[in-house]
Amino acid sequence: MADANGSADHLSLVLFSGTDDKLTAASILVAGAAALGKRVDILLQYWALEVFKKDCLEKDHGLSPEAGPGGASLLWRAGERGAPHWSETLRQAKDLGEVRLHACAHSLELFGLEQSDLDPLVDDVSGVASFMADAEGQMVFV
Amino acid sequence: MADANGSADHLSLVLFSGTDDKLTAASILVAGAAALGKRVDILLQYWALEVFKKDCLEKDHGLSPEAGPGGASLLWRAGERGAPHWSETLRQAKDLGEVRLHACAHSLELFGLEQSDLDPLVDDVSGVASFMADAEGQMVFV
Amino acid sequence: MADANGSADHLSLVLFSGTDDKLTAASILVAGAAALGKRVDILLQYWALEVFKKDCLEKDHGLSPEAGPGGASLLWRAGERGAPHWSETLRQAKDLGEVRLHACAHSLELFGLEQSDLDPLVDDVSGVASFMADAEGQMVFV
Repeated sequence: MADANGSADHLSLVLFSGTDDKLTAASILVAGAAALGKRVDILLQYWALEVFKKDCLEKDHGLSPEAGPGGASLLWRAGERGAPHWSETLRQAKDLGEVRLHACAHSLELFGLEQSDLDPLVDDVSGVASFMADAEGQMVFV
Repeated sequence: MADANGSADHLSLVLFSGTDDKLTAASILVAGAAALGKRVDILLQYWALEVFKKDCLEKDHGLSPEAGPGGASLLWRAGERGAPHWSETLRQAKDLGEVRLHACAHSLELFGLEQSDLDPLVDDVSGVASFMADAEGQMVFV
Repeated sequence: MADANGSADHLSLVLFSGTDDKLTAASILVAGAAALGKRVDILLQYWALEVFKKDCLEKDHGLSPEAGPGGASLLWRAGERGAPHWSETLRQAKDLGEVRLHACAHSLELFGLEQSDLDPLVDDVSGVASFMADAEGQMVFV
């Protein structure tokens, strides 16, 4: 499936949302891509960046409004039954393949944060332009 | 526009959201792609999967919070004027072209559902990895 | 990075959401793409189209629910410190590169609007099928 310039082997994920349901969905996509040997770059923006502050990943980040109370209890019970937390799925994806997390420089400034304030899962700080310049294949916004 | 490996002819849609406005927007994109002869694969996750339970499609699934009461009455009036329901748009897209709906195995388990609990519009159950492996062209998350 | 049919040089953005945080994130992506010399086509649908009504761009369009009151004051202070409004970022991107905004014909009809009711930043009216037919590279839904 790969073409000459390797674009089929690259997934660029702009992670904007910071609710646990979307973070779980995104992490599962990333893990799937990594398992296939795809290179994955993730740009953390806005509410997704906020979630990646140190000691913050496993807190309760809420759900999309459409989840309702039924959805919340559903995800809570899944955790009780041993489903891995999305941050663990992401950690496994990083161990498995070439997955890199970049803090968006613009959002970092907006929140008054520095990279040292972020969880070690975040690899570096990146501008949107350099993230876009590197985006050779599929691009997904979550 | 197609290239040698056919990637320009394939749209992979990760359908996560279950509100009627996003489902309508997604269905119109799918219909447009099908009309162009593109192959479309849709992965139903989370709140979008929940909507595809049997006898559930045409219920009221709410709107994005930003819609407000004005938005709700707008969409309701469109239905009154004869605009097709998004599920009908999707059905037509399936008749027209190569459009397949896959229930995400992970979400199915989360909701404690089986394929027999879902609307017949859903073709089969698929894992994220196999959906990703088949995704050759554009990938969109709604 | 470009391939023979130029698909790496094209970004198709379906802009559905009408909250200021998502509009800001989308505008920054567009500006980054334009700075790289990518051609960008934006389809304005639903709540994003509503925002592009004349004399409406710079009004308060709210934020994603997950922003909370803390997020709102954060973005407000960024504006106070001189961060450009997203509509200004979009205007600069249009000056810089080949960026075109299309009002979705379907959404326009839904809202009972005509192109003359929209901000001059909007270039024309387009159907979803013709937008999809022109979409050669990455496609992103915001």
